[in-house]
Order: sequence, then C-alpha cells, then structure tokens
Amino acid sequence: MTKSTKVNAAILIIGNEILSGRTQDTNTSTLATWLNSIGVTVGEVRVIPDIEKKIVDTVNLLRKNYDYVFTTGGIGPTHDDITAKSISKAFKIKYEIHKKAFKILEVYYKPGEFNEGRQKMIWMPKNAKLILNPTSGAPGFNVENVFCLPGVPSILKSMLGGLTNTIVGGEPILSLTISLRTVESEIANSLTKVQNNNKDVEIGSYPFFQAGKLGVSIVIRSEDQSKINKCNSQILEFVNKKKIEVVDK
Amino acid sequence: MTKSTKVNAAILIIGNEILSGRTQDTNTSTLATWLNSIGVTVGEVRVIPDIEKKIVDTVNLLRKNYDYVFTTGGIGPTHDDITAKSISKAFKIKYEIHKKAFKILEVYYKPGEFNEGRQKMIWMPKNAKLILNPTSGAPGFNVENVFCLPGVPSILKSMLGGLTNTIVGGEPILSLTISLRTVESEIANSLTKVQNNNKDVEIGSYPFFQAGKLGVSIVIRSEDQSKINKCNSQILEFVNKKKIEVVDK
Repeated sequence: MTKSTKVNAAILIIGNEILSGRTQDTNTSTLATWLNSIGVTVGEVRVIPDIEKKIVDTVNLLRKNYDYVFTTGGIGPTHDDITAKSISKAFKIKYEIHKKAFKILEVYYKPGEFNEGRQKMIWMPKNAKLILNPTSGAPGFNVENVFCLPGVPSILKSMLGGLTNTIVGGEPILSLTISLRTVESEIANSLTKVQNNNKDVEIGSYPFFQAGKLGVSIVIRSEDQSKINKCNSQILEFVNKKKIEVVDK
Repeated sequence: MTKSTKVNAAILIIGNEILSGRTQDTNTSTLATWLNSIGVTVGEVRVIPDIEKKIVDTVNLLRKNYDYVFTTGGIGPTHDDITAKSISKAFKIKYEIHKKAFKILEVYYKPGEFNEGRQKMIWMPKNAKLILNPTSGAPGFNVENVFCLPGVPSILKSMLGGLTNTIVGGEPILSLTISLRTVESEIANSLTKVQNNNKDVEIGSYPFFQAGKLGVSIVIRSEDQSKINKCNSQILEFVNKKKIEVVDK
C-alpha cells in the first residue's frame, strides 16, 4: 500500500453496556484520534450487542468494505465475552487454545493464578496474530484486517503503541481549527462559499459554549497543507470583513 | 402498541467531528439511558459522516429494522448541516420551508436577527412534525418513526422531555448492579452457570478500578423484577461461598 492511497477503517464497539447507556464509550474517540494521526480515516462506527450472529455478520460486512476494522470489548474471561469465538466463526477459522498466548499468560500470572476463568482468554481463532498488552497481560488479536482490542479504555490505550508499525496509513490527515466569537448563522453563507470553492477540503462548523460565551470552531481537514492554508485565508478574509473576533480555544 | 411488546430503537450519530476523534460523543449515552427508562431497547448505534448518500441509505435501512430511529447532528444553519435534506430524500418527501417552524423562529429571534443563515433551519421534509427546542429555538423534527435531534448535547437533552409522550415504549427494562471486590476470572465460571440457568435475563460483567482498587460490577437486566431477584440470589450464593466482599460503587 503506497503512501498516496487513502486508507480507511471502521470501528466496531461490542457491548451491551454502551447500548444500555450505563457506560459512556470513550474508545471511539481514542481510536479515531490515533487512526487519523497515522493517516487512516474512520468511515463509520457501529455499536452492537453481545450477540454472536450480530458480531459475525457485522464483522463480515465491515471487513469487506474497509481497509481495517477495529473491534473493542468482549475479550475478557466471562460468559459475555464472545468476541474471539465470533471472529473465528466470521472467518470460518477453528477456535482453539493459542499456544503463544498461553505462554504469555503462564509467565504473567503467579503460580496457581492462571485459573480456568483466565484460561478462557487464550482461546482465539487459530493462528491469530497477538496484540500485546503491556497493562494486564491478556493479549488482543488480529486476523487479516480485523484487530480485536479490549473494552477497558486504559488497557486499550496502552496497546495502540504496539500496533503503530502494523497499521499502514495513507497521508496523515491534517487539520486546522479557527475559533470565532460569533454564532453559526452569522457566517453560514460565507462559509458555504468557501466550501464550494474548495470542494476537496472538509470544512466543519461546530458551535461551542465556553466561559459563558458562545463561539464557533471551524475545522478544516485535508491531506494537503496548502489546501488548508488556502481555505484558512479565504475564511479569515470574511472574518475580518465582518469584524468577527478570532479567539483561542 | 401494547405495553407487553418489546420496543427497540437505533441511534444514528451524524457528524465528521465524531469520526475524526475531535469530539467525544455523549449523545449516545444520553439517548440510551432515556430510551431504556421508557422501555425502549437500543439495538444498535451507528456513527456516519456528513455525506448525503450515506445518511439516506442508513436511515432507510434502520427505519425498516427498528421501531424508532433517533438521529443527532446536522440540523444547524451551516453547509455541513444536511440531515433535513437527506431525510427528505430518504422518505422521498419534498424539502421545503416548514411554516410552523418559520413562525416559531420569527417569534424567537429579535427583529432583524432571523437572517438567511437561520432561515436554513426551517427547511424540512414537508409536513414533518416538529420537536420543540426549549433551549435555542430551532426545532428538531419527526417523520414516521425517525426523530431528528441536534448534535449539541445540552440542547438535545432539553428536547427529550417533550418527546416522552410521543415515544411508546414496552415494559421498562429494569436493572440491578452488584459490585464486588474481586476480579472477573474468580467469578467467571460461577457466573456462567447463573447465566445458563437464567437464559432470558441479560447478565453483564464489567471490571472497574476505583480508589486504587479493582472490582467487578455485575449488571442484571430484565423486564421482570422477579427474574432479576432470582439471579441476584443465585449470584449472592456463590459470592458468599467464595467470601467475596460486596461493595458500594
């Protein structure tokens, strides 16, 4: 894959606790920030329940439509952790004890602590590549373009560093934010003109409320810094004309 | 729809800012908590970019598969706000000025402030039902089983109260959480047995880290309190046998 190719990914959050509202997902934001920084655009995110058929069907759809798929959740020791078994079914690969994972956890746990519950975490699709876990031992795994990570945010975060050389991104997606003391409706028409003049640049407009004051952040995103600069100067032109204050945010 | 029917919903988060990692979505958790409280199970969540075809196709798929669909984002005044137009296309309904929305905003804004940018927010699918906005004037809207809400979390939250009588849920989904000073692997086998004995109850296991100590929250979910109670006593039985401490969390 050459550096000029656009590379995309889907994120699949597996877990009833997100769908019930009990747990606030933060893994999407962590993964998306990291992926963008290495030149991978996130095309979509899905959150689905701990239901095998749903996981199998969704993984099989996403892995065909995206360069990479990242799943989070469902790789722990309890009955509701069914990601590894579901991925095996999705790929029609045998679900079995992973010898290298066994060795890692045998060393990680004290004698006698590597109990039956923990041994569930070494069952994986046959020949899966391991994703090492510097926080809590139990590795994630990778089959073809699908990467399975845990749901606990701090553990997930600690595992991304080890993946940076495995994931091949395209040109990094650059972005520039201009924050203005205004409301969206004041700049909507001018901003539409800038977007129409720069169709291959992504321009987003996001209202904010900070220290009791309203504002708007304009985010310009592109792989090409010169295109961002061009948009930036066109935006600053109407901002100056309208005497809108540019603020730090 | 009778109270005994199971009612489900999908949440569709529309916005490049979530996919880039720039913004942490919190609307999923807000909507999911509210929906569960009124007896609506969230079957899936999708996050998609501000691309018309993607919105049209996803809305058309979800509205056929779920009782309700809730979208967030893309109903403001700027060029990247394309939800209303996309929903019109999805339903093949004319996209036009909504007279009631016009009247609401004409009253809401001071004379002269209801400018061209703001007038974009009254373009909607013909005959859409309005979802009133007690925070910032501009209403959301509803076509058939699709409800379109704004992306700004505080505004979205303020609009849910007005919808509670519109959304007809099934039996409320009840839940009970038991928090234990243990690790998942210690209870995995016993918990699996309880789940196998109570197949129609949803039992989730979630590790936590609080005040320097590890723990596990077990969440039991069902529409039937007696089933929850039965699971609870089976769980407490093995918890007592294993001399595991029950903690407040």
